[in-house]
Amino acid sequence: MRRGSELVDLPLREVVDRLHPSMAAVCRYHLGWDADGAQGAVQRVAKRVRAALALLSVRSVGAPEQFAAVAGTAVELVHQLSLLHDDIMDGDRERRGRPAAWARFGTGAAVLAGDALVVQAVATIFQARAPGVGTAMGELIAAVEQMVEGQAEDLALERRPLGEVSASRYVRMARGKTGALFGCAAALGAVLSDAPPAVVHALRGAGCHLGVAFQILDDVLGLWGERELTGKPVGTDVTRGKKTLPLVLAAASGCAEGRRVAALLGTAPPAPAHVPEIMRLLEATGSRERAEEAAADHVASAIAMLDEAQIPDDVRQQWLALIDCLSHRRR
Amino acid sequence: MRRGSELVDLPLREVVDRLHPSMAAVCRYHLGWDADGAQGAVQRVAKRVRAALALLSVRSVGAPEQFAAVAGTAVELVHQLSLLHDDIMDGDRERRGRPAAWARFGTGAAVLAGDALVVQAVATIFQARAPGVGTAMGELIAAVEQMVEGQAEDLALERRPLGEVSASRYVRMARGKTGALFGCAAALGAVLSDAPPAVVHALRGAGCHLGVAFQILDDVLGLWGERELTGKPVGTDVTRGKKTLPLVLAAASGCAEGRRVAALLGTAPPAPAHVPEIMRLLEATGSRERAEEAAADHVASAIAMLDEAQIPDDVRQQWLALIDCLSHRRR
Repeated sequence: MRRGSELVDLPLREVVDRLHPSMAAVCRYHLGWDADGAQGAVQRVAKRVRAALALLSVRSVGAPEQFAAVAGTAVELVHQLSLLHDDIMDGDRERRGRPAAWARFGTGAAVLAGDALVVQAVATIFQARAPGVGTAMGELIAAVEQMVEGQAEDLALERRPLGEVSASRYVRMARGKTGALFGCAAALGAVLSDAPPAVVHALRGAGCHLGVAFQILDDVLGLWGERELTGKPVGTDVTRGKKTLPLVLAAASGCAEGRRVAALLGTAPPAPAHVPEIMRLLEATGSRERAEEAAADHVASAIAMLDEAQIPDDVRQQWLALIDCLSHRRR
Repeated sequence: MRRGSELVDLPLREVVDRLHPSMAAVCRYHLGWDADGAQGAVQRVAKRVRAALALLSVRSVGAPEQFAAVAGTAVELVHQLSLLHDDIMDGDRERRGRPAAWARFGTGAAVLAGDALVVQAVATIFQARAPGVGTAMGELIAAVEQMVEGQAEDLALERRPLGEVSASRYVRMARGKTGALFGCAAALGAVLSDAPPAVVHALRGAGCHLGVAFQILDDVLGLWGERELTGKPVGTDVTRGKKTLPLVLAAASGCAEGRRVAALLGTAPPAPAHVPEIMRLLEATGSRERAEEAAADHVASAIAMLDEAQIPDDVRQQWLALIDCLSHRRR
């Protein structure tokens, strides 16, 4: 994973340096590059998964690593846009232990910084010198479209009673919100090198399944993770009305505890005082284990897609190492 | 201007219809297409200037009008993104006499709707069937980059004392914030048809100058316009610390009244109680007339650029009609 991070760090800095000074300041802070960015090292690990996928994408088809830098940078820029705007949308005042960019610089500056990043993502692909640059543009556009659609669905589900949200609807949402950009990261390097469509399809599918698994584990960490590691107070998702998979599975389980969870998240999001009870009910329904099983299923599907891509054995081992690392993350 | 509006209306609706239902609802409301969109007709006139420019762009080079629909739709989508996000950035709770989209649907939904629109703008060019589609993508990306840069500068200038903002710095800001997208609208149709670079350059330059003139007249209307027509309370720009051209020119005039304006807008934005005094001082410095002269200069530069483009005489007359209409707008 480290190499992916190294590949995109310099181009990311170059992009940020070209922005208007006030936007560059927001982005540097958000990315942990400013002087008081003590959390920088922590952030980097979590942040560069998509760059690592971009690197594995080119290695999978034997393409030059330069394409991974392009793909990883574009995808990372989109990801950072989504974080900047998500924190505004979710009203999250903190990110990784310090004020979110909008809380620090104002909503307007954070909105505009996100806009600046998404344009730079598109510009990064547009300016690339690679045989598959046209197809890559389409790949990126489709991923951002799906990501925005997934985020819209995520927002819409917040206002729906828990009992109305099925597991398959959750997965559709997660596929957009998180899977699309993971899939794009896994495909884009190969696309830039004009790899065969069947291989690109398999890589995209593997990335997408990994993204869904990643999102499910994110949900689990939001409920049972250690705050010092996740940088997020436990129960935030619950009181916001987020339809995370453990909640969805609990409500759908049909048992008494599940029905009680569904009732507590019926119309309006529950009060913070209800969180301990909800946590107890979730434990009783075993929905943590079932969410982790669902994540494991998506990991298995990702590996099956990789097998379709017929990638060299040493690169396959690198994929498995990354997948293993993602499956056991604690933040 | 009407024809430009007609050309883009259908493709715009198609784009909005494809969005997530919750995003489509935000966009339909914002565009005045919803049931209670009584202001729709008023909005349309003001809104479709860029579509009219796109139409003149293709007519100027004798290209098919279909390219104007593509160009006008892409540019209009970017424009609507900028309105959605600007209202959030500026904290404007109203747009054209009714609640702004963020005030109606929440900040998060309006941020995301803007993100959805900018992706669709890029997708519109990407999917176009036209000889100059690659160059057009570069034209659009550059315009959005410059627009975001201009908006960032606009935000940054709000926090600077008026005395530090020169007229040339204002023009640079306006060229990005408004000129870039006008220039893109005027160039993009021609670019799609692979028109010669010199012609494209002239059309882009004409559009950009028109955009700066448009922005200056917007500033003037913000101070001296009729609220019923502009839909914006007089003095909003002043109390927000916006560095509009009449203020900049007054402060730079060196006369006693101008120095007093500069003092009143020295460090923090002035209180609403100071607005009447500032208005009196502005009248005394004659900065309204000088701002209008500056707008007229940019209009003249636009016409000079048009002459470089060597467009057919009947199309030139249509350009002049549009320019005349923009120069005398009251909202």
